[in-house]
Formats: sequence, C-alpha cells, structure tokens
Amino acid sequence: MDQTLLMLPGPTNVSNRVLQAISKNVVNHRSAIFGEILTETSQLMSKVFKTNNQSYLLTGSGTAAMEAAIANILNPNDKVLNVISGKFGERLRDITNVFGGNSVALNIEWGDCAKPEDIKEELEKNEDIRAVTVVHNETSTGVAAPIKKIGKVLKDYDTLYVVDTVSSLGGDHVDVDKYGIDICFTGSQKCLAAPPGMAAVTVSDDGWKVIDNVKSSTYYLDLKKYRKYGVGTPPETPYTPSVTLIYGLYEALKIIEEEGLDARIKRHEKAAKATREAAKALGLKLFPKEEISSATVTAINMPDGMSDSELRGTMRNEYKVELAGGQDHLKGNVFRIGHMGNITYKELAITFSALEMTLKKLGFDVDLGSGVAEVSKVFI
Amino acid sequence: MDQTLLMLPGPTNVSNRVLQAISKNVVNHRSAIFGEILTETSQLMSKVFKTNNQSYLLTGSGTAAMEAAIANILNPNDKVLNVISGKFGERLRDITNVFGGNSVALNIEWGDCAKPEDIKEELEKNEDIRAVTVVHNETSTGVAAPIKKIGKVLKDYDTLYVVDTVSSLGGDHVDVDKYGIDICFTGSQKCLAAPPGMAAVTVSDDGWKVIDNVKSSTYYLDLKKYRKYGVGTPPETPYTPSVTLIYGLYEALKIIEEEGLDARIKRHEKAAKATREAAKALGLKLFPKEEISSATVTAINMPDGMSDSELRGTMRNEYKVELAGGQDHLKGNVFRIGHMGNITYKELAITFSALEMTLKKLGFDVDLGSGVAEVSKVFI
Repeated sequence: MDQTLLMLPGPTNVSNRVLQAISKNVVNHRSAIFGEILTETSQLMSKVFKTNNQSYLLTGSGTAAMEAAIANILNPNDKVLNVISGKFGERLRDITNVFGGNSVALNIEWGDCAKPEDIKEELEKNEDIRAVTVVHNETSTGVAAPIKKIGKVLKDYDTLYVVDTVSSLGGDHVDVDKYGIDICFTGSQKCLAAPPGMAAVTVSDDGWKVIDNVKSSTYYLDLKKYRKYGVGTPPETPYTPSVTLIYGLYEALKIIEEEGLDARIKRHEKAAKATREAAKALGLKLFPKEEISSATVTAINMPDGMSDSELRGTMRNEYKVELAGGQDHLKGNVFRIGHMGNITYKELAITFSALEMTLKKLGFDVDLGSGVAEVSKVFI
Repeated sequence: MDQTLLMLPGPTNVSNRVLQAISKNVVNHRSAIFGEILTETSQLMSKVFKTNNQSYLLTGSGTAAMEAAIANILNPNDKVLNVISGKFGERLRDITNVFGGNSVALNIEWGDCAKPEDIKEELEKNEDIRAVTVVHNETSTGVAAPIKKIGKVLKDYDTLYVVDTVSSLGGDHVDVDKYGIDICFTGSQKCLAAPPGMAAVTVSDDGWKVIDNVKSSTYYLDLKKYRKYGVGTPPETPYTPSVTLIYGLYEALKIIEEEGLDARIKRHEKAAKATREAAKALGLKLFPKEEISSATVTAINMPDGMSDSELRGTMRNEYKVELAGGQDHLKGNVFRIGHMGNITYKELAITFSALEMTLKKLGFDVDLGSGVAEVSKVFI
C-alpha cells in the first residue's frame, strides 16, 4: 500500500496480472507462436474499437499513432480540418504541418468542445478537406467531444474521419464502425491499463483507398507495410515489435473482455461522477462544464492562492498519490485527476482522503471525509 | 530447460534479472524519480557508445532509430551516400528516399563489405554529400564493416558519419568519439540483451549543427524535441516513453557495466570464433570470408539439397533451438546463428548438439559431438 498511486491521465496503474505477463520470455517475433499472439491481440483490439477493420499494433507512444494516422493519408498541401480544443488537438495540427498538409484549424476555447454544426460549417466553406481530426477525450482539459454526432455530420461529406481515442478507448463509448470513423487510434497506457510503449490504429476501407494513393512520407509508421506483413504466414509486423509489451497488451485486453466493455465504461462513468461530486463537496470548482466533462479524467481549478507544487507536491510527498498538473497556459491553474484503467472506489477513496488532508494542511477549509462520502454515495 | 533457445540476431534471450526489472510498477514518466532513471539509463547508454555526447532513448524498434538518424538531418534533395551490403543498408537507402534525400548508393555484393577507399572515391566524385551511412554489422549477411577505418577517411570530409550499430553495440568494438561518428544508434534487443521496443541514438556537435538547420520532417522522432525535454527539470522525453522497457534497458546496461564492456566484446568474439570453427568441423561452409565475419551473428551456407524448413524446422520443433533464415535473395541459401547478448559456451553447446543431430537426421554425414568439441576448444 505504500506504493505511489497513479491518478494520472496515463500512464495508469498496471495490474499484477499484466506485469506478470510482460515478464515472460521473449520469443522470436517471426515465429508462428508469436504470429498467433499478434493476431489474437489485434482481434481483441478491434473488438474494443468495435470495428470489423483490422487493428495494427505499433511499437511506440500514442504520438506515434497520431503520426501514423496523419502521415499516411497526406499528399503535399492536402487540406486537413484540425479541430483543436486542447494540447492534443494542437499536436495533430503540428503533425499535419510537419507532413506537408495544409491545416485548417477550428479553434475552440480550452475547456469547451467542438459542436458538430461548427464542423459542418467549416466543411461547407472548404470543399477539399481530405480529413477531419478530432480528439475524443482532450486530457489537457478533461473534456469529451461528441464523436458520435460529429460522425453523423461527416457521413454527408467525402472526407476521412480521424479520431484520437488515446485516452478514451476502453473507458468511454467508441464505436468505430457505427460512428463512421475511418482512422482511429489509441495508446496502451491509458484506459487499457497496459504499460506505455504500444499504440494501435485501425483503418476503414475508405481510409485504405486514400492511403493507397499517397506517397509514403514515413518509413517506420508506413501502414501499407503493416498491412502487408499482417497477412503474412505467420502474421508479422514489418519491424521487430516489442514482444514484451504485446504480451502485456494481450493480457490487458483479456481483462477487458472478462470485465465486459459496457461494464468497464459504466465503471469509468461512475468514477468520473464520483470524482466530480467529491471535488464539489470539497468546495473545488470543475474546469469544464459538467455536461461535456470526460469519463476518464477530471480537470479541477486550482484553489485561489494555492500553488501547483503545494497541492500536487503534498499529495505526492506526504500521501503518495500522483495527480497531474495543467498543461501549457493551464499550468498552475488546474490540476487533473485521472480515473482511467483499473480505477474503483478504492483508489478514489484514497485520493480524496489524501486531497482532503492536503487541502486542510494548506489552510483550506474542508471537512475531512466529506469528499470520500460523495465517492461512496456513487458507488454504494 | 525446455524453453526455446533463441539463437537469433535479435531478439536475444533476456535474463531473469531484466525480466524482473520490467515487471516493476510503472511510475509517472514526468516525475523526478523517473527523470533520474532516464538520466542514468542515458548515461549508461553513452558509456556503451563510448561517447561524451548525450544519448536519447526512443520508444520504438531499431528502425525507428534509423528513421530518426536520417529524417533529422535532411533537407529536400540533400545527397546521402548509402553504403549498401545487405538488407539494413538497403533500409537506410529507402528511408533516405522516403525523407526526400538524394541517395547515392555504394552497392557491395552481399557477403562482402565496404572498403574505406571505395567510400573515399565516392566522396571525391560527389562534393556535396551531406552524410554517409554505414551499417556496422550487417545481420543479413553476417559481415562487420571496418567502421574505425572508414571514420579515418571521413575525417577529411565535411560530411556526417552515420553508423547503424543496432546489432553490434555491446558485442563488438564501437567507439563513437574516437571513430568520429556523428550519429550512432542501436536497438535494445540485440547485444544489449533487453526486450525489443527501445532504441537509442547519440548525436555529435557537428550532427546537431546540421539538425538545427533542417526543417523537421518527423514529429514523433524529432530529435530537437528529445534534446529540449532531456534537459528539463526533471529530464523527460517529449512523449510518454515505455517506462517499463526503460527499466529493462537500465538493468541490462547495469549488467553490461558489471561484466565490463571489454570482457563482453571478448566473449562475443569467442562465441563467433567457436561458431565458425564448429560449423566448419561439421562440414558446413561459412557464407562470408572469415576475416570480415561478424562478432555477433554467423551466416552459414545451407547444405546442398537441404531446405530451410527442414533444417530450421527440425532445430525448432525437435530440439527447441531457434535459428534465423536468410533474408531476401538469401532466403533458403543461408541460415544464421545469432550469438549476441548473454551467449556463453552453454548456449553454443546446445546449439551445436542440436545442429549435429538435425544434420544427421536429415542424412548429412556428421560425427556427433564434433561441433561441440570445437566450441569447447575455444572456451576451455
């Protein structure tokens, strides 16, 4: 129990079962045995994406998957509508620019989220948008975008729908085929609760049509190669993958299958609600409006007169609970509680118990136990 | 003992100590504790590279490091001299082309290696070569290139020296600073004997001068970002790294430090010699000439009338020893024994015992024990 509890929007706490899985012996990545593991892991991944498309496993961070999603679909100067309401929306814009795309930015104030009608307006203004990028769950602001509704709008346009579900998949509703998502990607260390270092991407038939007409501008993340090697005998990746992390991802996906995806999402929604109620009971103010707030991470305004190092430093050093700070211009203005992966009432009880003590220690007027009580009310 | 023995040119057998290290709990990748691990691992990495330059850890395959080495130094149409004597030399050429470079290929027959004077000749013919790429240890052919001598030639030219030591670092002589290497990179799963999925790259001052004048054509592998985050407080990587695999790499590098780099290289040289002597004693023919053969992988001609699936299939299925086949046009014509990482006489005794039985079973005339005897003669 003395181990630091990670309440971050990734990496999240990894279960012993997964830690045991990754410590198995490494096998030949070009063997039939590994081909089976790769195939099964990809299939489990597609189930979580809710897609009939093939999922490809990339050895790299979530940012590698972002790069794969963009670099493979762009010829020079292709227009991309980047919906930007936080740091990861900005990152997709930056990647678009690095790979020679022509970024049309739909900028939304941090803490708010894209409205489907705003996206429709941009598509009407610009006829030749090759792709629209949306971050489902903006961890920097704790806001979830309405990707289902946006998908409905995009069905009337000849454009690819690219959705970043790095910090939502496995913790919030994502239905790749039903929402009409062409390219969807995620990371291992968020709601899937595997160690960091793997990413996954899935591509629709329309996505492949575009990719097949694009000159590759990435070698390591060239999805055409992943497709080719993926149907080999045995199925392989083009370059040596992290066999070890794929063991971990496989085990994490088996755990998700056992829990059931719907039950898992409900658990995340409960954890989010409990976090919001508990924060409010302690007199704290939520950063985004509740109706658009994320199921996997909650951003909370820093109390007046309190510094980030005081609040998060005390939480970490005195109580061994690691929270996330604000990013970029939100640094010092918000702190964030990640409740993704394996989080239950237990971790939230610890977190709010620690937060209550921290706030009290720092001179803030709180009733000890009042936050934890709200957690219990949600989970009882 | 019933576990399959990997005698591949990567991934290699990972020690229990490293497997235990990777199963430790994941910590926050933006914490002071992780900053220390990152710093120490980078420092240990630089010691193995024998450089005073900073080493950067990339979450990805060796191919990610190849891409980082090329994509960061090229403006469109910059000339690169790609020395090609096998599959990985070809890969560096392909990456050069993908990133808009103008590849000048010095093609050498597979099984042979570049002569410094040939490289000199190319540099005299082409004044504006921005970089020369050399694969130190061409795993596809089992040949080591004379990177020290090539470095001496390159000192007279204003060009970057880019050396792929993916399958040699930690098993053969690499002295980045002394050889004048500007960009050197490696992978975790070869001679370092960590699990696959991490790569490392080191850059000289001259290398940085070039990188600072190049427009980034990669986002995930943009080395300028790695440099910036690497000197942060705490030191970080720009994107979530594989905390887990860095634990493993750290432990693997500590093991190398304990063994001593010189002793480790001597052990690899012994293993290579033992492998060659044993193969010859069994009547097998080495693919490359002995004087240029690799310290970490030995390529052997497939005996006449024997198929790859017979030889390697029997080794794998009957005797649980995994060897590598030939790549591209060498498929079916050679097989390869990797002897990198933690290999001692024990693994070679198993391998040659298995190979003797396999050959005999397949109707080849061998004296059982005659290969193993040669291994013992080298290691006694």
